[in-house]
Amino acid sequence: MDFRIEKDTMGNVNVPADKLWGAQTERSRNNFKIGASASMPLEIVYGFAYLKKAAAYTNNELGVLSTEKRDLIAKVCDEILEGKHDNQFPLVIWQTGSGTQSNMNVNEVIANRAHQIAGHIIGEGEKTIQPNDDVNKSQSSNDTFPTGMHIAAYKKIVETTIPGITKLRDTLHKKAIEFKEVVKIGRTHLMDATPLTLGQEFSGYVSQLDHGLKALKNTLPHLAELALGGTAVGTGLNTPKGYDILVAKYIAQFTNLPFITAENKFEALAAHDALVETHGALKQLAVSLNKIANDVRMMASGPRSGIGEIIIPANEPGSSIMPGKVNPTQCEALTMVCAQVMGNDVAVTVGGTQGHYELNVFKPMMAANVLQSAQLIGDACVSFEAHCASGIEPNHGVIKELLNNSLMLVTALNTKIGYYKAAEIANTAHKNGTTLKEEAINLGYVSAEDYDTWVKPENMVGDSK
Amino acid sequence: MDFRIEKDTMGNVNVPADKLWGAQTERSRNNFKIGASASMPLEIVYGFAYLKKAAAYTNNELGVLSTEKRDLIAKVCDEILEGKHDNQFPLVIWQTGSGTQSNMNVNEVIANRAHQIAGHIIGEGEKTIQPNDDVNKSQSSNDTFPTGMHIAAYKKIVETTIPGITKLRDTLHKKAIEFKEVVKIGRTHLMDATPLTLGQEFSGYVSQLDHGLKALKNTLPHLAELALGGTAVGTGLNTPKGYDILVAKYIAQFTNLPFITAENKFEALAAHDALVETHGALKQLAVSLNKIANDVRMMASGPRSGIGEIIIPANEPGSSIMPGKVNPTQCEALTMVCAQVMGNDVAVTVGGTQGHYELNVFKPMMAANVLQSAQLIGDACVSFEAHCASGIEPNHGVIKELLNNSLMLVTALNTKIGYYKAAEIANTAHKNGTTLKEEAINLGYVSAEDYDTWVKPENMVGDSK
Amino acid sequence: MDFRIEKDTMGNVNVPADKLWGAQTERSRNNFKIGASASMPLEIVYGFAYLKKAAAYTNNELGVLSTEKRDLIAKVCDEILEGKHDNQFPLVIWQTGSGTQSNMNVNEVIANRAHQIAGHIIGEGEKTIQPNDDVNKSQSSNDTFPTGMHIAAYKKIVETTIPGITKLRDTLHKKAIEFKEVVKIGRTHLMDATPLTLGQEFSGYVSQLDHGLKALKNTLPHLAELALGGTAVGTGLNTPKGYDILVAKYIAQFTNLPFITAENKFEALAAHDALVETHGALKQLAVSLNKIANDVRMMASGPRSGIGEIIIPANEPGSSIMPGKVNPTQCEALTMVCAQVMGNDVAVTVGGTQGHYELNVFKPMMAANVLQSAQLIGDACVSFEAHCASGIEPNHGVIKELLNNSLMLVTALNTKIGYYKAAEIANTAHKNGTTLKEEAINLGYVSAEDYDTWVKPENMVGDSK
Amino acid sequence: MDFRIEKDTMGNVNVPADKLWGAQTERSRNNFKIGASASMPLEIVYGFAYLKKAAAYTNNELGVLSTEKRDLIAKVCDEILEGKHDNQFPLVIWQTGSGTQSNMNVNEVIANRAHQIAGHIIGEGEKTIQPNDDVNKSQSSNDTFPTGMHIAAYKKIVETTIPGITKLRDTLHKKAIEFKEVVKIGRTHLMDATPLTLGQEFSGYVSQLDHGLKALKNTLPHLAELALGGTAVGTGLNTPKGYDILVAKYIAQFTNLPFITAENKFEALAAHDALVETHGALKQLAVSLNKIANDVRMMASGPRSGIGEIIIPANEPGSSIMPGKVNPTQCEALTMVCAQVMGNDVAVTVGGTQGHYELNVFKPMMAANVLQSAQLIGDACVSFEAHCASGIEPNHGVIKELLNNSLMLVTALNTKIGYYKAAEIANTAHKNGTTLKEEAINLGYVSAEDYDTWVKPENMVGDSK
Repeated sequence: MDFRIEKDTMGNVNVPADKLWGAQTERSRNNFKIGASASMPLEIVYGFAYLKKAAAYTNNELGVLSTEKRDLIAKVCDEILEGKHDNQFPLVIWQTGSGTQSNMNVNEVIANRAHQIAGHIIGEGEKTIQPNDDVNKSQSSNDTFPTGMHIAAYKKIVETTIPGITKLRDTLHKKAIEFKEVVKIGRTHLMDATPLTLGQEFSGYVSQLDHGLKALKNTLPHLAELALGGTAVGTGLNTPKGYDILVAKYIAQFTNLPFITAENKFEALAAHDALVETHGALKQLAVSLNKIANDVRMMASGPRSGIGEIIIPANEPGSSIMPGKVNPTQCEALTMVCAQVMGNDVAVTVGGTQGHYELNVFKPMMAANVLQSAQLIGDACVSFEAHCASGIEPNHGVIKELLNNSLMLVTALNTKIGYYKAAEIANTAHKNGTTLKEEAINLGYVSAEDYDTWVKPENMVGDSK
Repeated sequence: MDFRIEKDTMGNVNVPADKLWGAQTERSRNNFKIGASASMPLEIVYGFAYLKKAAAYTNNELGVLSTEKRDLIAKVCDEILEGKHDNQFPLVIWQTGSGTQSNMNVNEVIANRAHQIAGHIIGEGEKTIQPNDDVNKSQSSNDTFPTGMHIAAYKKIVETTIPGITKLRDTLHKKAIEFKEVVKIGRTHLMDATPLTLGQEFSGYVSQLDHGLKALKNTLPHLAELALGGTAVGTGLNTPKGYDILVAKYIAQFTNLPFITAENKFEALAAHDALVETHGALKQLAVSLNKIANDVRMMASGPRSGIGEIIIPANEPGSSIMPGKVNPTQCEALTMVCAQVMGNDVAVTVGGTQGHYELNVFKPMMAANVLQSAQLIGDACVSFEAHCASGIEPNHGVIKELLNNSLMLVTALNTKIGYYKAAEIANTAHKNGTTLKEEAINLGYVSAEDYDTWVKPENMVGDSK
Repeated sequence: MDFRIEKDTMGNVNVPADKLWGAQTERSRNNFKIGASASMPLEIVYGFAYLKKAAAYTNNELGVLSTEKRDLIAKVCDEILEGKHDNQFPLVIWQTGSGTQSNMNVNEVIANRAHQIAGHIIGEGEKTIQPNDDVNKSQSSNDTFPTGMHIAAYKKIVETTIPGITKLRDTLHKKAIEFKEVVKIGRTHLMDATPLTLGQEFSGYVSQLDHGLKALKNTLPHLAELALGGTAVGTGLNTPKGYDILVAKYIAQFTNLPFITAENKFEALAAHDALVETHGALKQLAVSLNKIANDVRMMASGPRSGIGEIIIPANEPGSSIMPGKVNPTQCEALTMVCAQVMGNDVAVTVGGTQGHYELNVFKPMMAANVLQSAQLIGDACVSFEAHCASGIEPNHGVIKELLNNSLMLVTALNTKIGYYKAAEIANTAHKNGTTLKEEAINLGYVSAEDYDTWVKPENMVGDSK
Repeated sequence: MDFRIEKDTMGNVNVPADKLWGAQTERSRNNFKIGASASMPLEIVYGFAYLKKAAAYTNNELGVLSTEKRDLIAKVCDEILEGKHDNQFPLVIWQTGSGTQSNMNVNEVIANRAHQIAGHIIGEGEKTIQPNDDVNKSQSSNDTFPTGMHIAAYKKIVETTIPGITKLRDTLHKKAIEFKEVVKIGRTHLMDATPLTLGQEFSGYVSQLDHGLKALKNTLPHLAELALGGTAVGTGLNTPKGYDILVAKYIAQFTNLPFITAENKFEALAAHDALVETHGALKQLAVSLNKIANDVRMMASGPRSGIGEIIIPANEPGSSIMPGKVNPTQCEALTMVCAQVMGNDVAVTVGGTQGHYELNVFKPMMAANVLQSAQLIGDACVSFEAHCASGIEPNHGVIKELLNNSLMLVTALNTKIGYYKAAEIANTAHKNGTTLKEEAINLGYVSAEDYDTWVKPENMVGDSK
């Protein structure tokens, strides 16, 4: 392989000649061989591209960076955002906890690529723009990395997570309406209970997701606060006056999202409670989705020896040994995602507790977990919607049969003959394997006529069906 | 011991003669000998007292309960809320997951006590009011327990947690102002960094708590939604028309808190995402508090061989073997609480995922964890505030010495001579054990005069000090 | 209330006159009003009683404590172990993280009670034995508390947890044998699969618990290592030669458990990986128990509209509104315990990570969680065994019906006609609502005779039934 | 793109012409677009290659597969293990929870590649070997996937995790010996305490890792148990007699690892407690490593305003804004890994709880987390050893200065003059900012001569230094 020499304050480093990165990126590649390479999420790199461009514009506007340099930096940032340099970011999550080397990776790539754009050959001549003094001007890893991760997380939430959940929510809502007349047996403690409609069951899922979406959106204002302008420790050392507000404005403009400068930069560097908060909401959604997926697979269980009240789409052969088997695979993928999100929540939480003094150094790990959870939930909802939820149909025959069998219809008699006598009817029918009506009459508590008037499942499901 | 006979739909049970509870409570006592007795939080019992009284008023107003019965029920509820019957609730958390037996415990105590108040002897004659048909009228365990736990959790949050955190927040804010001129060394990666003021550090803590309080308050509307009126499966079977809205209104009136009926009762029984959501915010606060307590104990470490920048109150002898030792014990209590809350969050999360069909049966466990976390955070903040935070003082001598030693003051030179030369100065001073100024001059990069003009810690802390 | 004056190195403190504790206990009571009072588990106090007695014997044997003092100390320790002073330990978990004040609480109670036994009145005259210099001789909180918590945890595991699990394991094993001929439908993905016996299902539960018990026992050697003898930082300062080994021997003798001195005292003070390890095994058992309880409640679901393959004991009325309902309440209590243990595992883990330098200061929290989990698992297994597992019976009629319906019996044809043709049979029968046999013949793949020979559920369950 | 037609029991599917996979893989690609593609760990694919080859040998030996087919299958498996087909496994973790489609992916690739090796063109003519009937003979996804994941996890643990930890352990042990005479101040509660040697501190780390390694090795026997031979539900339907034991023997032979057939196949399919157990040990190691890394970074903090007792290697420029800064970046990478492992533990735990009936359907997620944690810990230990631990040096000047300052040397006087007087000396010296010796003499408790004899730090560190 061909190499060129790059240098930093510690000396010279050999870098692969065909790569745009510089000395510090290469050092990090060698010093942190932990897990798969290039595990640092590209979304964070793109977050950096937005902020580097915004910083260049701000520095220029505030008189500390030339217009030529601004334009060179902005041009490379645009290229990065177009995905043209995705293979120039080889670093891993498990590096310095401030993400310093990923910041430098971006700085180096921008500087070298700008040198090319300016018509030079990388490694020859004075760099047209300097990674530290120009690209990183008015910045520190300590404020850029949290800014980059907030941009990445916010975008992921609004572009992937919320739309995915909303798509599923809307389909479930459609089903809730579609199924509003389908009276079925209710189950509490997994045991037969009083009836409700299938639509009511689905309306509960919708309500869960509505609350979850609200909770997730509640976390966005904290995530919209950007650390940029705090520089090394939050004081804003080496930034021109007005920099923090203006740079946030540019980021908002470039991303078209409501980012603002964090009111308190000391928090913004030393604590990542915003990520903890956002992930907390993702975890809540995982809890909701787990409930929904569990219900769907239990209700779809069978086809002959399970519950079998609903039918879900058959998307693939279900078994390599049992011919003709169809499984609730989308429920399984979704619940695995939910378990992962619950685990990620602990990782984010643990990372969040360990900020020390002016800096939390669990940034890459926290950000990677938030991004993964946000992506997985969004994708899994889309997948579950397309390949399962949208195709759910009631199995009317089974539903009717299970409903009419139920001893819990007796509850309708509570207000007529009291809880104790009603219990006696149910217990006797259970013991004798008979029907409620038979025993109600046998015991002399209810006439056949009254029974038929009082015990009507369709009258037991309330107004909200 | 003396016993009397109580009965339920399964038959007769011996109950201690001096106790107000009935057959089902006694069955539960015998069937669930798990952990310490009476572990079911009294706060939930009180929540039940509010809702039983509200149900009685509502049932009366809607014409299904006599005024005499209403008043008897209300009177016992008031007695319970006055703490007069605390020893009548012997059940444990680890019972049926719907809390049915705690609901019946309350129903039975109310019925028996009402019998007494009505001038009868418990166990003699027909019960004046029936536990199921009267006290539990228009209710089910499935909607009362979640209502009781929401009332209990909401009250705990607004009466203990928020005031406790706010007290600490205000003291930290006072300190932030008090210390706004105390310039000190900053630390990132635990390593010396550029300066900031002690007040700025504290302002970061305040900002964390402000965001945490906001996050916690964001969860209250979900918690304010009450399941009552859903009865067995969410349909409201056996409730009079208008019951759900009216009963929530009475609960709001009796508690003086903004409770409303849940728009969707199916969610309110089958999922407890509201508890997951609220505990998520408690966990976020635990993350914040952990950061704060860690910083305080690190900054207070010493007295002679640590950091020693601040002095915290000495509240007790710190060691049984090392004479004269004083330890950051309040930090330790607080961080232990934080770890517990992080653990509780997983318990609540796991419970939340496992609702099946129309009912989540992890109610008592989830509620108990939310209540414990809310109590511990509130109490620990009050304790930390009173015995630690309010007494924190800067150790000016140490602060000044550590500040002036620092090599990171060199950062002020970046914008004057560039990052690379500044790095050379710092590295040389580090290697030689000399001062920045000496090496800046030796290397010929800065004159003594410029150095003194440019490198002033008090000018490096920004406007927000 | 009456008070007497007690003093420590910080000065005088008013202590309730009727209490045996001294100044430091009282300070702690006042400084740590966090959560319920006296939350520090009594098991730890008893652990202290064993070790204080052992220390007295060792100190005496090694010539640094008089025989009179030894006997006085030992006598009070015996009284504590008899439960005579349970109300003398009012402190909370949420105190100093080394448990210093609980160590002093024990020291003070022993000293004052010894003074009484020696015929004096507490608060009058020179203390017969000194809390620090005599009771705490050759000790520090830093080595006594971890010793006390290891003693408490080890005892709880072997006296409560292991016996409880074993009891349940044995009953499940008995059921596995009892049910070994009960052929039933298998279910994978909750969907109908090939048959197995109910006994085989139960044998899987037994195997889980066997592995879990083995895992738990694997953790005991680490837990058997005692910190005592390390004193303040692990060096054993102020202990006589041979002290650590001898004191562990005495503890082993008094407890009749195989305690030994930790080979490395620095680990034993600064890290509590032994608790992390033990709790990890408890968590594994919670995972197993959760699986078992879930299966039981799903198989018992119904009675008419669920799976209904097994019948579990009806222990209490199941619903306050639905008459005659019986619920799997023991499963619910057990799974709530499992969720709590999973949460506690995170609390213990987080505490375990945060040892700093020579001391981990999350001791009381970690110990309390281990003790709670160990107790809850043990108790819940006993409860589940007595009130559920031991009474489980197959519902033969349902089992047979669900078995014979199943389309997955087709799997027996794989080795005769290949997976693809078998799948075609199953799919066709599913589509047409017919039987496998009909379609096998219709499609011309199998003769009626061959079908009957090849497709026999009882031949599909292997040798291990 | 070119396509060919592949078919399964559900019909025809277009598959990219240049790929070896078949219909079911392609269906899964389309049905599960969740997260990054090809996230299913290759280690599991390799685990499958071992077991498919072993199954072919076993089937052949037991007379149900021809030698030609055996050899074709084995040849492709060997190619897979050589990494020649890494890009033929495009599926994701988030698929069916039994991993059925990854099993079929392997079956399909083997069948198609075997067709090529046999001289045919994929998609033309009858397949030389059939994916289900030949490659998957005597198997089900339900027993192959857990077998594949056990093989993968076991190999990862013994090839990456244990060697990585051992390497670090050995270096720390070397340091413990190297530093055994370096007396330094101890710290408890982060506060100055009695002295110990730096070697003693490191010996504690070694002891933690030794215990952790032992705990990890304790879990291997469970992991060595293989599900293969259980087929669909654990009964071994459609396997020849003796298959399970023989196939495990072949796997043991091919992998050179001590795999055996699981005694109970019902557990082996329905529960993955073995993964829970192994990950529990990984989590314990994460706890230990977190402690070690934290200590190292605190002791290395500074260089001028921190603790600074040790010097760690400077591997890269530490700050993009603060010139000359060096940070404990390896500690940060390691502690981020630890946090991730703690999170993964919860994901594995949650997955483990949710086995239902005969199958746990969280297999891919659980396996992926175990593999990630095992890899990250192994890699991070190697990285930390190479770039940090091996280069740690004491900063003798600082160590001596901090030691001699300490007031806790007073503890040596406890056994001479009693705890109370010793405390008075320390408190007075603290108040007056004087030395212990001055105040010991001033207070008249100790003569100068005695002081010098009694208070010698090097005599306070015990025998084990």
